[in-house]
Amino acid sequence: MNEDGCLLIIGGDEETRHRKDILQRFVDLAGGPERNLVLLTSASAEPEEMAAPYHDILSQLGVRRHASVHTTTREEANDAALAERIAHADGILITGGDQKRLMANIGGTALDRALHEALKRRCACLAGTSAGASAMAGHMLASGFAEFEPEKGAGVLGAGLGFVQHVVIDQHFSQRHRINRLLSVIAQNPYLYGLGIDEDTALVVERGVGIEVIGAGGVTFLDGRGMTTNAADIDNGERPELIGVQLHVLPSGSGYVLPGQGGQAVRLAHVTREAPAPIQEFISNLTKRNPLS
Amino acid sequence: MNEDGCLLIIGGDEETRHRKDILQRFVDLAGGPERNLVLLTSASAEPEEMAAPYHDILSQLGVRRHASVHTTTREEANDAALAERIAHADGILITGGDQKRLMANIGGTALDRALHEALKRRCACLAGTSAGASAMAGHMLASGFAEFEPEKGAGVLGAGLGFVQHVVIDQHFSQRHRINRLLSVIAQNPYLYGLGIDEDTALVVERGVGIEVIGAGGVTFLDGRGMTTNAADIDNGERPELIGVQLHVLPSGSGYVLPGQGGQAVRLAHVTREAPAPIQEFISNLTKRNPLS
Repeated sequence: MNEDGCLLIIGGDEETRHRKDILQRFVDLAGGPERNLVLLTSASAEPEEMAAPYHDILSQLGVRRHASVHTTTREEANDAALAERIAHADGILITGGDQKRLMANIGGTALDRALHEALKRRCACLAGTSAGASAMAGHMLASGFAEFEPEKGAGVLGAGLGFVQHVVIDQHFSQRHRINRLLSVIAQNPYLYGLGIDEDTALVVERGVGIEVIGAGGVTFLDGRGMTTNAADIDNGERPELIGVQLHVLPSGSGYVLPGQGGQAVRLAHVTREAPAPIQEFISNLTKRNPLS
Repeated sequence: MNEDGCLLIIGGDEETRHRKDILQRFVDLAGGPERNLVLLTSASAEPEEMAAPYHDILSQLGVRRHASVHTTTREEANDAALAERIAHADGILITGGDQKRLMANIGGTALDRALHEALKRRCACLAGTSAGASAMAGHMLASGFAEFEPEKGAGVLGAGLGFVQHVVIDQHFSQRHRINRLLSVIAQNPYLYGLGIDEDTALVVERGVGIEVIGAGGVTFLDGRGMTTNAADIDNGERPELIGVQLHVLPSGSGYVLPGQGGQAVRLAHVTREAPAPIQEFISNLTKRNPLS
């Protein structure tokens, strides 16, 4: 087992009737159906309705130990017994809902620390879908809307869980036409990479090693580090000019390891191609063992 | 008057009730309301309904000489008298409809040659909106659809009028979420620049000098010349990987001259900023006096 744990960042609406590949991968990444899996539903206002189909599918996939953890107050999220359940899970899936609700509820609590502990100490697989995906970043895309053009102020950031840093994650990306929202964030935060994940699609991150795109859609990387923009000079609600954004589209099946890491993969052992130069730093950042370093 | 004529590439649905800025610019670029303007409606199956609102607005803008030219057969498009009317126009606006109908009807005819003659000899302003905009390129985006992901074969090219070369033009760009269609074309034709123009938005091109974005929306440049892709290795209908596409977004009000051309502008005399390096070649190509050279 890779000693660094792994991430499964899901774009929401993962298909479960005809194909179960994304949730099957969640089970595999957690170590198989014998492992102890937990659903964290704190992003949702209807936790039981949210959890029920997942529990059905996990049962269908042969998993025997799967339970939900839900919190509605920070007091609950500081409950030691609840945090212990998270810290001892092999796979944790943070469901959809509202990422602001999730973070208001668990950010900085014992439960938040337990998530990090599970990843670090137990080499767990930490998965997040929809709101749960956005919350995995240190700078969380909390809300906002930019219909047809990038717009200053259209992407509102909040503090996220920080499993990846220097990245903003958006989900339901192509289906909700969110490229302009993500470009709006990049325009004002060129040091953040933009990661857009389509519905029924996931990015597998094996820390220190590499990535893989699975599911039905694709993943979009936006890299504005070399961009020039007038975003700082215009008013909120105005449209920035963006010159020199790097755009990369990785369809399902794309996967890359960092240079020299080909033999090191545990969960991505079948991924052997080395990342080409234009996306090496992006992938290196996503796969950091200590994201804040 | 600039001896090279100019282009006005309009993304369709130009607003005419509250603002008439795009059609006003058409009149200005043609030399003012005293000039002789022609609407070419051959892209449309309902030419009179298509032309009527334009004639209303041109009258409101003080233009006295404005007429429609319509053809439904190649024989008509080879009519010398009709071609003469085009060749002697100061401003020609190719309306919307279907760019395939337009090109099947006029491509390679006397009327096609007359359009080029008006631009070259009379320094006319050649405008195209919607279908008329797409047809201005040498390689015309004829049809196709890619909903959420770039897809091999999703963008179908045909032969266009060739006022700009090495560029594929798409219109109604943000409103119809066409970035994936344009990326699909780029994936298979990395030597073509992608130019996406939003509705109620236009790109003014003063040949040899520079460009300006006007109207309500923005213009997107996609530059795949440095991209790597597996598009050649996959089947039609499959999704290509695209690594290293340059994306530029120019909102309304953006305008650039080529290096050293600041004092040379006639129609874009108010545009003084020199194009930054990442978009210089794109603009240099769009503004070529002899696009095929």
